[in-house]
Amino acid sequence: MDTNVISAEIIAMEEAALTRWGNGDPSGFLEISAPDIVYFDPYIPRRIDGLGALSEYYETIRGQIHIDRFELLNPNVQVTGDMAVLTFNYTSYKDNQPTRWNCTEVYRRTDGRWQIVQTHWSYTEVYKYQMNA
Amino acid sequence: MDTNVISAEIIAMEEAALTRWGNGDPSGFLEISAPDIVYFDPYIPRRIDGLGALSEYYETIRGQIHIDRFELLNPNVQVTGDMAVLTFNYTSYKDNQPTRWNCTEVYRRTDGRWQIVQTHWSYTEVYKYQMNA
Repeated sequence: MDTNVISAEIIAMEEAALTRWGNGDPSGFLEISAPDIVYFDPYIPRRIDGLGALSEYYETIRGQIHIDRFELLNPNVQVTGDMAVLTFNYTSYKDNQPTRWNCTEVYRRTDGRWQIVQTHWSYTEVYKYQMNA
Repeated sequence: MDTNVISAEIIAMEEAALTRWGNGDPSGFLEISAPDIVYFDPYIPRRIDGLGALSEYYETIRGQIHIDRFELLNPNVQVTGDMAVLTFNYTSYKDNQPTRWNCTEVYRRTDGRWQIVQTHWSYTEVYKYQMNA
């Protein structure tokens, strides 16, 4: 399959999951994540391993995230065989306040279906944010 | 090739590059990075694209990083064909002060040689750190 077609499919999957995420629904991501997914975000003490553990984590925040809009910026997809590495910058807005993120999603194709096997979210220029323990 | 053999090779490459990094030498990473590498860390305003841009960035910090020791914790490698996703937690120590990181490295094999195509570094439990703009 053409790399451009794969790139477009993967970016569309990510945007659809992000839209649900911004309405408090983490299932958009869970439904396209593989059993062996590994996961990082800025709030967890160590990598989360596996869809079971990630589901437990996401259930604790279901319904709590509400953003007004988001921008998925400059997406890049590196395709090699049955793996594709999607990277982008991302800005979410709530009450016109932007929060800026770096994101890496690795997708793997199994039986023709793309699933996320690695997710990594982090703050862009983190030193500009006020962090409170 | 056996997945365990690939995993061991990739973890050894990463450890060797990290050892040089901790002595102020970014070339350990540059020498194993692919031309199309994409890169995130907490300090840059957007993703860095390409080995040329990453080299320029790393030259600005050459000789400035000195850590006493580091721990590469719980490395995991997901291999699919010619791509391998290495994730780990990492703690560096300087004057007994730990700094804790999340890391994702995606390696790609070209002509039998593994190279990094995606690097993403971020702070673990970032809210525990005092950030100053």
